[in-house]
Amino acid sequence: MKQLGLALLLMAGVSSAQEPADFQPATTNVWGAQYPRVDGEGRVQVRIKAPEATEVRLNFWSGPKVDMEKEADGFWTVTTEPLAPGLHYYTVFVNGAEMSDPGSEAFFGGGKYASAVEVPEPGVDFYAIKDVPHGQVREVWYHSKVTGTWRHALVYLPAGYEKETDVRYPVLYLQHGGGEDETGWIRQGRANFIMDNLIADGSCKPMIVVMAYGYARRAGTTPPDLSGRPFSSPEWRKAMQDMMAAFEDDVTEALIPFVDATYRTIADRDHRAMAGLSMGGMQTFQITLNNLDLFSHIGGFSGGLGRMMFGDQKLDIKTVYDGVFADPAAFAEKVHLLWLGIGTNEPERMLEGIRGLHAALTEAGIEHVYWESPGTDHEWQTWRRDLKDFAPRLFR
Amino acid sequence: MKQLGLALLLMAGVSSAQEPADFQPATTNVWGAQYPRVDGEGRVQVRIKAPEATEVRLNFWSGPKVDMEKEADGFWTVTTEPLAPGLHYYTVFVNGAEMSDPGSEAFFGGGKYASAVEVPEPGVDFYAIKDVPHGQVREVWYHSKVTGTWRHALVYLPAGYEKETDVRYPVLYLQHGGGEDETGWIRQGRANFIMDNLIADGSCKPMIVVMAYGYARRAGTTPPDLSGRPFSSPEWRKAMQDMMAAFEDDVTEALIPFVDATYRTIADRDHRAMAGLSMGGMQTFQITLNNLDLFSHIGGFSGGLGRMMFGDQKLDIKTVYDGVFADPAAFAEKVHLLWLGIGTNEPERMLEGIRGLHAALTEAGIEHVYWESPGTDHEWQTWRRDLKDFAPRLFR
Repeated sequence: MKQLGLALLLMAGVSSAQEPADFQPATTNVWGAQYPRVDGEGRVQVRIKAPEATEVRLNFWSGPKVDMEKEADGFWTVTTEPLAPGLHYYTVFVNGAEMSDPGSEAFFGGGKYASAVEVPEPGVDFYAIKDVPHGQVREVWYHSKVTGTWRHALVYLPAGYEKETDVRYPVLYLQHGGGEDETGWIRQGRANFIMDNLIADGSCKPMIVVMAYGYARRAGTTPPDLSGRPFSSPEWRKAMQDMMAAFEDDVTEALIPFVDATYRTIADRDHRAMAGLSMGGMQTFQITLNNLDLFSHIGGFSGGLGRMMFGDQKLDIKTVYDGVFADPAAFAEKVHLLWLGIGTNEPERMLEGIRGLHAALTEAGIEHVYWESPGTDHEWQTWRRDLKDFAPRLFR
Repeated sequence: MKQLGLALLLMAGVSSAQEPADFQPATTNVWGAQYPRVDGEGRVQVRIKAPEATEVRLNFWSGPKVDMEKEADGFWTVTTEPLAPGLHYYTVFVNGAEMSDPGSEAFFGGGKYASAVEVPEPGVDFYAIKDVPHGQVREVWYHSKVTGTWRHALVYLPAGYEKETDVRYPVLYLQHGGGEDETGWIRQGRANFIMDNLIADGSCKPMIVVMAYGYARRAGTTPPDLSGRPFSSPEWRKAMQDMMAAFEDDVTEALIPFVDATYRTIADRDHRAMAGLSMGGMQTFQITLNNLDLFSHIGGFSGGLGRMMFGDQKLDIKTVYDGVFADPAAFAEKVHLLWLGIGTNEPERMLEGIRGLHAALTEAGIEHVYWESPGTDHEWQTWRRDLKDFAPRLFR
């Protein structure tokens, strides 16, 4: 509606005089939304209109799950304890219905569009937009014979790509986590600003970053019927393996050829890296280690080797992936960078899994970089920091 | 979570055997979501989990508002009457809380991320992705001295832009409606596919399309306090005029120079067009008619002249915008295309407003194209059709 639309956008700018001085609207809010708010300690205030509800509960996915209180005007509010810096997904349960907060931008996570609040990290601005040359993020569609579908990807091209038309660039393939999609590294991760800033201050080589959609189903196949099967069942394992294998083929047979045909890449293994977070980390290990003719730099952000998921925590490092880790010298010859990271506040199982992998690689004499992000959970602040440490080590 | 993420994405692919044959998941759903569903007649089935709710209501913004019924499993469902083809925004009220549907992609409209369902139009595919050369949509950030902020815009570059590095292109500035943002024309409008298809079949000249964020506040100013003021008040009028004026300056002083410096444009008035829908149409008239040294092609999609909003339906066509319509011959000399459109099912007030403008322009002898989209409301199907008719007439 014309009038409604205009009224709405101006209303959004109306200031409110009765807020505690220290609370500010989150930077992740939609235009003009006053809630959620964050204070200097990282406390978050959420406010939701639900006049007829009898129970409203705030649900931070890796944080507090607390009841909200009804106010006289039909709004429900709550203020959390201080949260760690970074972007935190949340939803709100209104009488059992899980909803996103209309005051927040929508971020694709958990298989749906969820809310999130950005808690600033004092003195830290490596993921802020700054007055430096900016790369551009492009949306591309490529047709995949593997899946039989058009697939959407985002591609970051560094500042200068447009003008310096003789220059060719190395490529980093960068994957999202389970339940997220190809938009995650830009929207949640701010990877474009991280890369802009790293490239501008000279600590990172200019490179192309490709962010693909990490789910795939082979053309002509139907989804498996997993109803009632436990996650540990052979049917689940097979479904997962099929999905991972289809995505591997999509990357190697459709995505990489498309990227190399479309952009001025240096199309060889020495100038091609892959990294991913969580599920994307597992995909990265599988795709790179199965295809070392295509990749030479590998990053796993809070993501281990695939089999660890099924309880094979004590995997034999000498035999996985056709024995790629059996000969440390041969591995070091081929793989210019193997990078592992995890946040110190991630769930125990994940922390132990990645620490175990680090220990096994060390014992096997496999050269690699291992880094723990202090005080952060299985969330985006960990992965932003990972990218900041990882990207400058590429293509040296 | 690693396991959760994987479980979730595979669950999403699990098929259900008990659905009516004709209902299919909407193409606007997130990966694997089975609801909302659409049948061949355009009926929509919505299904929402709200186990403890006592009242759940489906709310199509330009369509049915109906109570949903609780099923034994804690889900609420309803099937609508047949809807017109196109994309329809909706939300769901759960005990008075307005929520989006987790099964739907999120589209920015009404000042928040809302749900929408695509009802296919039989035999119509001008906005479908096809096996034709695809342009790329780029995200750019430009700094505006007018607003004192970094501003985000999307830019469509036609297929071939990358390879034919000697070619320069005309530019269409294309604006969203009130409550929407710069993503609307791509996500809701599918403007990139419309342009791809029109350019591929030769009916439209290759051009750059710039989609900017249509809200602006001048640097150093604070939002007006409009609490308690009626929309017809002088305070509202002033707030609106300030917003429109700030956006006008942002377009002419920041956006256009940025675009011309960044892309291979033909940077003159003969090769620059602007169009917009609803609020964006009003902005288009103001910006183009005040700056005919910059623009020569004008499109208003369901959007009239600004003053009509305040009840000046009987505006004097000879005096508006400094008398730009007073001399038809002079106007035709300068403006190569003036295009007006409206859907026949739009609200009476809008329909009468645009028909009145068409009549006034005709009476004043101003050459223009007028088109009514049959059977569509103040919604995206109208504006997709508008773009399809408008774009091929540009830069001839």
